[in-house]
Amino acid sequence: MNLILLHKDDFIGGTKRVTLHGRRLQHVLTVLRAKPGDELAVGLSDGLLGRGRVTMISEDELEMETTLDKEPPAPLPVTLLLALPRPKVLRRVLLTASSMGVKKIFLMNAFRVEKSFWKSPFLGEASLRQQLVLGLEQAGDTVMPDVHLRPLFKPFVEDELPGLIRGTTPLAAHPDAENGWPEKTAGPVTLAIGPEGGFIPYETDKLRDCGFRTVSLGKRILRVEAALPALLSKFF
Amino acid sequence: MNLILLHKDDFIGGTKRVTLHGRRLQHVLTVLRAKPGDELAVGLSDGLLGRGRVTMISEDELEMETTLDKEPPAPLPVTLLLALPRPKVLRRVLLTASSMGVKKIFLMNAFRVEKSFWKSPFLGEASLRQQLVLGLEQAGDTVMPDVHLRPLFKPFVEDELPGLIRGTTPLAAHPDAENGWPEKTAGPVTLAIGPEGGFIPYETDKLRDCGFRTVSLGKRILRVEAALPALLSKFF
Repeated sequence: MNLILLHKDDFIGGTKRVTLHGRRLQHVLTVLRAKPGDELAVGLSDGLLGRGRVTMISEDELEMETTLDKEPPAPLPVTLLLALPRPKVLRRVLLTASSMGVKKIFLMNAFRVEKSFWKSPFLGEASLRQQLVLGLEQAGDTVMPDVHLRPLFKPFVEDELPGLIRGTTPLAAHPDAENGWPEKTAGPVTLAIGPEGGFIPYETDKLRDCGFRTVSLGKRILRVEAALPALLSKFF
Repeated sequence: MNLILLHKDDFIGGTKRVTLHGRRLQHVLTVLRAKPGDELAVGLSDGLLGRGRVTMISEDELEMETTLDKEPPAPLPVTLLLALPRPKVLRRVLLTASSMGVKKIFLMNAFRVEKSFWKSPFLGEASLRQQLVLGLEQAGDTVMPDVHLRPLFKPFVEDELPGLIRGTTPLAAHPDAENGWPEKTAGPVTLAIGPEGGFIPYETDKLRDCGFRTVSLGKRILRVEAALPALLSKFF
């Protein structure tokens, strides 16, 4: 946690004073070991970054006086389409995507996505949100990403994707692609990443029909945990 | 497992025939579901890639006739110096480094590395090797990386590092660095990545004295699981 993410209801009505309990208080107590007078890095959810000066701290509660005056880091101009990974991996990659500044994430179906993955409790709103918050706290960002679930491949690609990719460069990462990684991409990108085992030919064909170019980082097949930051890093 | 990694003692003396048991057999039985006549992607540890044609398969044993005729993918020209991460993270980042083609890894100490991490059973030779093998199997590579443990920062940086970095571009990743990521690096690179919380100023000073340039991917502070592939991807 390199940033304590604050929410509107942490503030004492109409003031810049904040009270914290629970997980964030525990972090301040056990990791930061803050004392009254210390300044902590804070940010308001979907708002500005700043500092919080500790005015009171106990085992049960923390009070801070906040100054919020800095813009959060720029978002990454990437819309991410990710074939739904297995639940444990999903949690890590959501955290990674959030920490790297992705603001729009579509978890999509593909032939090689196991059906059971769509029943995972980690797809619940609170559970998704938790990973996104951890990513923002890691990176010092405040802007919450949106996550959309698209459990049907065909209608998503045929009906929704053409609108989504408008004004972006649509790229599908695929280890077998003949195209290497594009040297430079101008403007926003829509990046599709397949499941373990890759998209099947029907799926890459559908994505190509929609306007996607399949591109490759090389012959090495990476786990999605590694492929995602490796691909996003191309836009850093 | 996108490749079955074979060892010399899997071969029936003097032949191209291989027998498999244990973890690799289980993978062939339960994931690949291979039948006699099927061809599987194989590679000889530190040797060539090729195909193995299944001649016999049962619950206890697999026999294959192998043809090894292809070079493994090129290694990544990066020597990795990694401040020892917490054990669970270590296992994932070793797999990632191995899958991305790093062949020389130094796990080093730093002020913010918890002392207990050096006592982890995951630092045992067999345990390290297991993650490296998983990485090679993931990426379709055969060349085993070397991992070196350097539990003392100062003698490592003062006595050994000057020799290690000779002929390479030495870069230390540091979120606070003023230099952005270099557009292009020619030739091999030595890449240092700090611990959670970063290198302390004494350590970045020592690295700079040794010839390292501190470089940054941006203001976002990433977990090492994300930072490592994001950084290595710059050399893909």
